[in-house]
Amino acid sequence: MAQNIYDRTDFFDGYSRLERSVAGLAGAAEWPSMRALLPDMTGLRVVDLGCGFGWFCRWAREQGAARVLGLDLSDNMLHRARSMTADPAITYDRADLERLELPATVFDLAYSSLALHYIPDLAPLLATVHRALVPGGYFVFSIEHPILMAPSRQDWSTNADGHPVWPVEGYLREGARKSDWLAQGVVKYHRMIGTTLNHLIQQKFVIAHVEEWGATEAQIAARPEWAKERERPMFLLIAARR
Amino acid sequence: MAQNIYDRTDFFDGYSRLERSVAGLAGAAEWPSMRALLPDMTGLRVVDLGCGFGWFCRWAREQGAARVLGLDLSDNMLHRARSMTADPAITYDRADLERLELPATVFDLAYSSLALHYIPDLAPLLATVHRALVPGGYFVFSIEHPILMAPSRQDWSTNADGHPVWPVEGYLREGARKSDWLAQGVVKYHRMIGTTLNHLIQQKFVIAHVEEWGATEAQIAARPEWAKERERPMFLLIAARR
Repeated sequence: MAQNIYDRTDFFDGYSRLERSVAGLAGAAEWPSMRALLPDMTGLRVVDLGCGFGWFCRWAREQGAARVLGLDLSDNMLHRARSMTADPAITYDRADLERLELPATVFDLAYSSLALHYIPDLAPLLATVHRALVPGGYFVFSIEHPILMAPSRQDWSTNADGHPVWPVEGYLREGARKSDWLAQGVVKYHRMIGTTLNHLIQQKFVIAHVEEWGATEAQIAARPEWAKERERPMFLLIAARR
Repeated sequence: MAQNIYDRTDFFDGYSRLERSVAGLAGAAEWPSMRALLPDMTGLRVVDLGCGFGWFCRWAREQGAARVLGLDLSDNMLHRARSMTADPAITYDRADLERLELPATVFDLAYSSLALHYIPDLAPLLATVHRALVPGGYFVFSIEHPILMAPSRQDWSTNADGHPVWPVEGYLREGARKSDWLAQGVVKYHRMIGTTLNHLIQQKFVIAHVEEWGATEAQIAARPEWAKERERPMFLLIAARR
């Protein structure tokens, strides 16, 4: 089972202070790009895999989604999510994405933000999601970009010209990566872009869009401290259709 | 128009001495992976975009392809290719891939090895290839991997553990890259994986397989000097269907 890092107090406390936790979707720099991949939400039945505090679930309802199911492994996250809405069309349930079971052809959109890199084996989850979507249904998700995840030392370096560089190593060695992001010993799973896409294709998804996201020039103009964020991509955003 | 680097004597002489030039497909370490993406060649009508010395064209005929058209911008390459076969089912023609014109629905397979990274604008070429393929037809191609191409300085470095690292920078800055591979001032075009895939999707191709290729463990066992080739991918191999 995936490491339940969000129920560790040190990690949860750190996560709760992130801009994306406090400000919601508006605090997530990649949100405009994610939103651009989403269909018109009116009347959609939506499942959010790794819903966290439920920001996306509530946004989906505001946009006209008919029903939203938010799933998360963390009781901490679910407790906070439930405290933030009384909407009867939103349900939050505890679920381990590695053992996920969903009924067949009941969702129009499956969404997941920065959760699937915690899952060691994608294939069973993708099969479940494919089966749970209606034909033509959408699967839109983000993960950390493998260029970011691959190195054992995730630190910026400098080249001979004094230019910041991101030292890639181990890109072809897929598997667990321990990082000390927010807490010590957080385990994520590095997979090449090709591996993730081929898993989707094997499960009969049609790839609709692939975006290697870094902060935009406009975002860097507003936050000069993000200047390095065009040297290497931070997130991978994928849209697929059943 | 794309830089006609293969007709520059310094580059052509260097290229002619590469293992893949002398030994053909068997001298190209990624060939087994490319071959695995190809359909049964029996009876296929094939076009090779950037055919070079024509090794793939001749292989396709040996495998039972009905007709093969090899296209290249370089007179040097075409001259050598023509000198190596008398097969009337193989035609070699000069073509600038940036201005390529092909008749509609006449090919079952379009193939391209390490040529498309010389093309500044992929969209017109991909539209032409899509139109030239029969419905269900295959497009299989390789390019240099953008992780390899992005940095202004394409040199290995070493991290604080003494481990070899590939210093990525400029990954989100797409466009021309000058390198000094075989000759000074060779111009290639860096595009993110997502950009290449989205171009294909916009032209109505269905993505069938994406492989970020590095030397295999078996290849490294046979050639220990390739040990670094699993730290970062060297080539990007894509299979798509019309």
